Amino acid sequence: MDLAAATAGGRAAAEVGGDARGGAVAGGRAAGRGPVPRAALAESLEEVMREHGREALQYQWPEGYGPLREQVAAMLRERGVDVAQDELLITSGAQQALDLLARLLLRPGDALGIESPTYVAAIEVFGLQRPRMVPLARDEDGLDLAAVRALVRGAEKSLLYLAPAGHNPSGSSLSAEACESIVELSRAHDALVIEDDAYGRIQFEEPRRPLRSYPGAEERVILVGTFSKALTPGLRVGWIVAPPVVTAQLVLLKGIADLQTNTLGQMALSSYLERHHLDAHVARCLPRYRERRDAMLQSLAEHMPAEVRWTRPTCGFSVWVKLPEAQAADALLARAIEAGVAFEPGAAFFPIDAPRNYLRLSFSNQTPERIAEAVARLGKSLRAP
Amino acid sequence: MDLAAATAGGRAAAEVGGDARGGAVAGGRAAGRGPVPRAALAESLEEVMREHGREALQYQWPEGYGPLREQVAAMLRERGVDVAQDELLITSGAQQALDLLARLLLRPGDALGIESPTYVAAIEVFGLQRPRMVPLARDEDGLDLAAVRALVRGAEKSLLYLAPAGHNPSGSSLSAEACESIVELSRAHDALVIEDDAYGRIQFEEPRRPLRSYPGAEERVILVGTFSKALTPGLRVGWIVAPPVVTAQLVLLKGIADLQTNTLGQMALSSYLERHHLDAHVARCLPRYRERRDAMLQSLAEHMPAEVRWTRPTCGFSVWVKLPEAQAADALLARAIEAGVAFEPGAAFFPIDAPRNYLRLSFSNQTPERIAEAVARLGKSLRAP
Repeated sequence: MDLAAATAGGRAAAEVGGDARGGAVAGGRAAGRGPVPRAALAESLEEVMREHGREALQYQWPEGYGPLREQVAAMLRERGVDVAQDELLITSGAQQALDLLARLLLRPGDALGIESPTYVAAIEVFGLQRPRMVPLARDEDGLDLAAVRALVRGAEKSLLYLAPAGHNPSGSSLSAEACESIVELSRAHDALVIEDDAYGRIQFEEPRRPLRSYPGAEERVILVGTFSKALTPGLRVGWIVAPPVVTAQLVLLKGIADLQTNTLGQMALSSYLERHHLDAHVARCLPRYRERRDAMLQSLAEHMPAEVRWTRPTCGFSVWVKLPEAQAADALLARAIEAGVAFEPGAAFFPIDAPRNYLRLSFSNQTPERIAEAVARLGKSLRAP
Repeated sequence: MDLAAATAGGRAAAEVGGDARGGAVAGGRAAGRGPVPRAALAESLEEVMREHGREALQYQWPEGYGPLREQVAAMLRERGVDVAQDELLITSGAQQALDLLARLLLRPGDALGIESPTYVAAIEVFGLQRPRMVPLARDEDGLDLAAVRALVRGAEKSLLYLAPAGHNPSGSSLSAEACESIVELSRAHDALVIEDDAYGRIQFEEPRRPLRSYPGAEERVILVGTFSKALTPGLRVGWIVAPPVVTAQLVLLKGIADLQTNTLGQMALSSYLERHHLDAHVARCLPRYRERRDAMLQSLAEHMPAEVRWTRPTCGFSVWVKLPEAQAADALLARAIEAGVAFEPGAAFFPIDAPRNYLRLSFSNQTPERIAEAVARLGKSLRAP
């Protein structure tokens, strides 16, 4: 894990790309910076402290604050996922959800099917368990289902980590047919799928249903979600939906790992959801993200050399860019930082055999004007000797 | 790990003992319920949302919010612990601190010296790494230093988990001489000590310095602390102070485990500490805790059969009770719950070879009157056939 490099990139003054968070695993989630409903959340916090201050500052159950668990379940039901209360656990963000799942489900040497490329910090957190990583090629056009088939057929039990309804870094979702095939394969071969739905609500075209909403998925698909992308990352609240027998073990592990997710954040989110619909907030944000995406796509078309390729995201916060094979993104980053532009070099997004000629550009946290200027500078850096 | 039993006990309607938190690991920390400064914390939250709302709802660095790290370091300096910024990491409570340390420092089969009895959830979190647990007898009178000596002499590298300045469940602290011996042994034999200082500020007699404040300790002693006992547990903020090389690895692991501790909670605590001194708050709380402790000690003297023994806590939130050997605490619990009283059976506090005739009574979260009534009922349950 080249954490030092990621840190350096993440901490550089960023014109485009670079997470608001940064830090050692900065290459991971694109920043949630943007339209966080500050006033509404401040009001919710005030209401919680006024009406339930004693409870909000005390310990809670490891599985999470009851009313919030019901609200998250209701939100998921609206997206076609049927969730019973004993299937849901609140976590300290989606990252902890992945950590708990990795610790519960992976032993050293176990096969883990993992999209390539994928979310950087997923590679890191699964990597701690020293599994055998089996890369499953994923791009804008979909997932290599033949590789999935070969994996689940070849192993007695296998685990897959996928982002069907909002893939980071490509900004794409899988088709309904692909989702059906994955569920079918997981059922036929006793495989478990961890579905990362962090970006599941950030959809610029028709809304995508989570993989777990597909018929037969509830026994094989474990869904991981978070408030970080759709609402705010600063409260660190996410969730896992899993079969009850898995959830029961996760609750024990969660209690041992950090007792519980912070009470105040859970109660503030619950209070917010009582008075606001998350979809309504997302619907207000999407035009702004779409405008930023479009600004980035247009600037790329204007400023990139002819041999550079990039995705056209239908979801999420970033564009995935492919340089000619001879060009190394980390060398480009050094030149770009001199020009005041930062991005995430793509190598860290590959679980193994990382090519060096990819990079991720985030568009969520900058104005269209700044994005256009940054991409223009990036184009110049690319052409520089 | 008999988690089911702990859960059942923790969730029962508790007259005395029983954590506010409860849940799977309820047997662990005694409840912080009591004098949480709600109004002051509500004010801090309001101030943070008003002045720094954008930052408070966003990502932060894995190592924690800078100003809070400086404030925690300053608080520790007042207790004689010299802390550099690269030695301090903010965690999601002391429990996560123990989890990160266990994951970084323990491999299956490694020797872990652990007090017996000790904090339940420490046994659980270290147990996940499957070490060889070496019990070090600990009671009101101190720690079995001969056992410590044998351990550190016999292993090339060894790890110890101790609560020198506030032991749960006995409510006792080690003498200065014992602390000096431990530091000396750890230096002579290349041992690392994890110091659990969660109750370090809850002292009813002369204040105790952390082990890490003793000369020569900074290279061998890793201190774990938290706001949960002295201020509030609901924000889930704790810390680790470790040598810089260990801290650097912990920061990477923290980023992988859950990215960071919730931003809002960290900033609210920082705002609180800008305007209030934690010691002043603790000083206001101590008379209340002392009164509750004294009520419990007096009721025990009045209502316990002659052959029952208990500690006289000088710190912390609980009294540790020893029944005659033939009496099992879990059987007593069943009868006590019928009488409306709950407590923590002591078996879970022992890392191995658990005797069944111990129990822990918490006094932090009930009035003296309720404590007296509960202990009276407990005495009746003990005498019942």
